[in-house]
Amino acid sequence: MGERFPRYAYEDFTVGSEWSLGSKIVSAEEIIDFASQFDPQPFHLDEAAGKASILGGLAASGWHTVSMFMRMLCDAYLLDSTSQGAPGVDFVKWKYPVLAGDTLTGKTTILDQRLSKSKPSLGFVKMHHDVFNQNGVLVCELEHTAMFSVREPSTA
Amino acid sequence: MGERFPRYAYEDFTVGSEWSLGSKIVSAEEIIDFASQFDPQPFHLDEAAGKASILGGLAASGWHTVSMFMRMLCDAYLLDSTSQGAPGVDFVKWKYPVLAGDTLTGKTTILDQRLSKSKPSLGFVKMHHDVFNQNGVLVCELEHTAMFSVREPSTA
Repeated sequence: MGERFPRYAYEDFTVGSEWSLGSKIVSAEEIIDFASQFDPQPFHLDEAAGKASILGGLAASGWHTVSMFMRMLCDAYLLDSTSQGAPGVDFVKWKYPVLAGDTLTGKTTILDQRLSKSKPSLGFVKMHHDVFNQNGVLVCELEHTAMFSVREPSTA
Repeated sequence: MGERFPRYAYEDFTVGSEWSLGSKIVSAEEIIDFASQFDPQPFHLDEAAGKASILGGLAASGWHTVSMFMRMLCDAYLLDSTSQGAPGVDFVKWKYPVLAGDTLTGKTTILDQRLSKSKPSLGFVKMHHDVFNQNGVLVCELEHTAMFSVREPSTA
């Protein structure tokens, strides 16, 4: 296959623009599989323990929620972009439990963009992300600054 | 089995105390398995793509790194504590690539602790976490505030 320039570059992430994420159904099996590997607390492993906890049911680990969000981001635009990764996350807030059977959706809102001073082919994009459940309840929000290559480097 | 009170409660997380995390060997298979599910960018899926990227080799997704850290935290003290979860994360910084074959270690340092005003059986513990590779290089740091039940509620 020949090289194809990605669909989305730094220039496309204009301040105020919104980017819809696709939906993701969360199964009990996936919650238990993730928790068994990475976060084996009882309310992430067992329906009865989840119901007895403040979470109210078999609930996804917060790290599972952000990992599912990452896949939604990849599928929505990141894999067809000039993404150069991200050095970290400014914050994550887990606002509401993600339970087995939930359907997640989400959106990205662009807060800021600026070109790198030292490397003019690169830009920084500050993003706010919201993840909702099937009832429109905000379950998770996070912000981070991502790096994207520009489509057309300035000749200035 | 009878109920046993957990080994660690709010009172144990004194300011300045350090908590060692165990070690975790990161396999190529685990990196690819996580990335296939949650972060299918080429440098997380393929050794050659990783070598060609800024990461320098087959590299774990940043979300995989924090998920492995979470398991280290669970095994070190969280599963035998009065943990009541956490509402979020203040920040995550991915400082250095985590590559296939690396061995991760880490520690928690307690920054602050305070009792809940509204619920005296609960306390908030602010934690800083460092994750290192086998060469002592800091690969990831993060901070969050966790909730723990107290061992002996105040009668004041």
